Amino acid sequence: MSNKDETVRPEARLPKGLFDVPAEEIRASAAMLATISDVFESYGFEPLDTPAIEYSDALGKFLPDQDRPNEGVFSFKDDDGEWLSLRYDLTAPLARYVAANYATLPKPFRRYQSGPVWRNEKPGPGRFRQFTQFDADTVGAASVAADAELCMLAADTLEALGLRGQYVVKVNNRRILDGVLESIGLGGDNQAPRRLLVLRAIDKLDRLGLHGVEALLGKGRKDDSGDFTKGAELERNQIVPILSMIEPGRDRGDQIAVIDFGVGGSEIGTAGLKELEQINSLIAVAGYSDRIRVDPTVVRGLEYYTGPVFEADLTAPITDNRGQPIRLGSVVSGGRYDGLVERFTGEKVPATGISIGVSRLLYGLKTLDKLSTESAQGPVVVPVLDRDRIADYQSMAMKLRRAGIRAELYLGESGMKVQMKYADRRGAPCVVIQGGDEHAKGEVQIKDLILGATLTAIKDRDEYLKKQAEAQFPVPESKLVEAVRDVLARHKA
Amino acid sequence: MSNKDETVRPEARLPKGLFDVPAEEIRASAAMLATISDVFESYGFEPLDTPAIEYSDALGKFLPDQDRPNEGVFSFKDDDGEWLSLRYDLTAPLARYVAANYATLPKPFRRYQSGPVWRNEKPGPGRFRQFTQFDADTVGAASVAADAELCMLAADTLEALGLRGQYVVKVNNRRILDGVLESIGLGGDNQAPRRLLVLRAIDKLDRLGLHGVEALLGKGRKDDSGDFTKGAELERNQIVPILSMIEPGRDRGDQIAVIDFGVGGSEIGTAGLKELEQINSLIAVAGYSDRIRVDPTVVRGLEYYTGPVFEADLTAPITDNRGQPIRLGSVVSGGRYDGLVERFTGEKVPATGISIGVSRLLYGLKTLDKLSTESAQGPVVVPVLDRDRIADYQSMAMKLRRAGIRAELYLGESGMKVQMKYADRRGAPCVVIQGGDEHAKGEVQIKDLILGATLTAIKDRDEYLKKQAEAQFPVPESKLVEAVRDVLARHKA
Repeated sequence: MSNKDETVRPEARLPKGLFDVPAEEIRASAAMLATISDVFESYGFEPLDTPAIEYSDALGKFLPDQDRPNEGVFSFKDDDGEWLSLRYDLTAPLARYVAANYATLPKPFRRYQSGPVWRNEKPGPGRFRQFTQFDADTVGAASVAADAELCMLAADTLEALGLRGQYVVKVNNRRILDGVLESIGLGGDNQAPRRLLVLRAIDKLDRLGLHGVEALLGKGRKDDSGDFTKGAELERNQIVPILSMIEPGRDRGDQIAVIDFGVGGSEIGTAGLKELEQINSLIAVAGYSDRIRVDPTVVRGLEYYTGPVFEADLTAPITDNRGQPIRLGSVVSGGRYDGLVERFTGEKVPATGISIGVSRLLYGLKTLDKLSTESAQGPVVVPVLDRDRIADYQSMAMKLRRAGIRAELYLGESGMKVQMKYADRRGAPCVVIQGGDEHAKGEVQIKDLILGATLTAIKDRDEYLKKQAEAQFPVPESKLVEAVRDVLARHKA
Repeated sequence: MSNKDETVRPEARLPKGLFDVPAEEIRASAAMLATISDVFESYGFEPLDTPAIEYSDALGKFLPDQDRPNEGVFSFKDDDGEWLSLRYDLTAPLARYVAANYATLPKPFRRYQSGPVWRNEKPGPGRFRQFTQFDADTVGAASVAADAELCMLAADTLEALGLRGQYVVKVNNRRILDGVLESIGLGGDNQAPRRLLVLRAIDKLDRLGLHGVEALLGKGRKDDSGDFTKGAELERNQIVPILSMIEPGRDRGDQIAVIDFGVGGSEIGTAGLKELEQINSLIAVAGYSDRIRVDPTVVRGLEYYTGPVFEADLTAPITDNRGQPIRLGSVVSGGRYDGLVERFTGEKVPATGISIGVSRLLYGLKTLDKLSTESAQGPVVVPVLDRDRIADYQSMAMKLRRAGIRAELYLGESGMKVQMKYADRRGAPCVVIQGGDEHAKGEVQIKDLILGATLTAIKDRDEYLKKQAEAQFPVPESKLVEAVRDVLARHKA
């Protein structure tokens, strides 16, 4: 029917930056998320879920690297003309939730939330338009003990994922930078856009190095592709104090002293330094100094942080799928944001939190071979030899399932050869075969596919025959479950 | 600062039809989803995740009760001008996935997926704009054994959730209705819109009764609010054969015979009946006849079903939160959709699936008291009596956590009275107190809040003093973990 061929068919494709997640990754991810939940729960954090869609004005615009309004967010109009957006992180919805429910919440309020967030960004390597975050936040606690706790929570979580000795949690205080900026004439509301440029320049230290940051603080920087990023247009005497604070290669033994020098007596900077000292001391007493370190280069690119900021990086080398070393970036990041709830209520509500980049951490764990290897075993497959007896084959699969064994009936129309290939493809440890002969004798054949695959490598005839007999053998139908259990036991790790 | 008061603040609210999910419901839901996954896995289904956003044309328009284009779906334009939509179910994304990956999939392909879907509908009681579905589908299996398997999977899942004897799975075949419609002159492409009206009318039998359906098949129906829904405008002699097929009160002993009579020899109807008989026979052999029943009134409101259709209903009475009986609707629904992948490829790919309405099922389980009652125990709370010793209090919480006990440090600024209220609010089984006196003696006080709450009811003085001593007692700091463990053991179920 030529008519049919002319039908315009939709293309089976996904929009850029969006991906399907295969079974193996879902299982690994679920195991990782369960471990993270356990650690968060142990600290007394409670789960919360919020919807994917919120009023755009409730979410606000707090994305890094997005200066234009509405940039970076998927938005659409509701029937009544109001703008809605897909959440771009889990912090903005939390602020909305806390503002709406403040009276009835326990205070301080510790909550954790895990779920997808969406960014309407130009996708690229490692940049997705949907990805998963796992956040823990403490709302209503002004004490830096809450910040110190989150740093320890990050450390304990990475330990629980098997990363001992392969990560570092870095902590700093945004107010220290604010002090430096004030001292070079960048204080006050009218300098806010420039302060943000400085913040984002410093946040790129890891990627661009000190010279790159220097360029971004000054006139600007041309990247490898030839694109020019305009700089913060600071003068030389403004740039130097900033660079001296973040310059690598200094003696990292006493970061506090380094910072003290840089702050140079500014009030806000001194207050930030004092908080940092308190956090450092809480961390030391708790015995985390080897894993949580003060680092003045950590500023985080988000405008809304108001005090302590932290991030966790993997220290072990990470490679891409061709073995080339790559810069993974922080697997945990966070900080204090005392102004987010105030946006709604006008009242200051202190808050601090961390966010785990789930995909990034999963990739790191995979590369470092720390993923739970316990993947689901393929099901036992029951092929269909005689289509009229499909109910009998179904019963066999059911018997196995009732005994706690993953099992499936072959549901296609193909012959035995294709069915055996299917069983291989499904990772079946064995198949259960009953043709007419076996049926007449009240028997089934159990075929061990894992053992069977090793047979061709056996040179010795007697050995071969012995193994062959083990790899395929008849049992009375009544012994089906037992026999399959025996085969599964052969291949238990 | 009057300036500040004039700031326009966003309102902390959610768009209609969208809801936050509190901790208790998240925990109950997670336990239910884990049970469902286990059953689905045991049948050999593999997990898959697809993104929330797809190309609008790839999703198509297959919503029930939505005849206007784009109605019912949240859509927005991508940067390149292409329309994107939030998925409204998990079936359309599966069809896209299968069409894109057909060559490399095992065939038949069993997959399960769980996640939120979005409907841009007028929200109402029990109608949300974001809700969770849990689907299992088998793609590439033309055999009705695949449909029978899904009915049994639904039954086994409801059994695993503790609903034995409180549910029924109903199965029918869409082609039987197609046969009846053909026999009354509603066959052929140009009658498709009218067939859809008939379908949706029948699908409302449960809610509107036979007279309501009759009205919708004829001129139309005015509902309680006075709104008029236009009918399918069938003649009397067209309506009667449809009603006689779905009329309740007939002897339900042999549904197949009832249907056979209704089909009246139409080719497509006879083919549908034959498939239904085959499914019925597979179900009978497998011993599910008490839980899975043929029911000619099941048609499902979705246009794309091409053969067997099924649904599962709870048979136990369900009430709302004021104890009034409510119609919960189907907790599982599904059917065969042989055309969905063909939309993309032009090649027929048989497919069949079920979808669990997670919120609805959760509500049913809650009402029937079948929810896992094992909620997370509140954390042990360590109050802060001396703010200078916060590091010490933190260490106590840490010691408890390291021993596997959920524990948290109080992070607020309030005095002891508020801190004790906080501990109550958190459901803490006990608190660990160390003031100056205890510290000097190297002791801590353990206060059992559960036992403590029972003290006021004790009349006998000696009994009171004995219990009081049990409810609060000092231990050496080195025995902290042991003592807390003992208190927790008192209150284990």
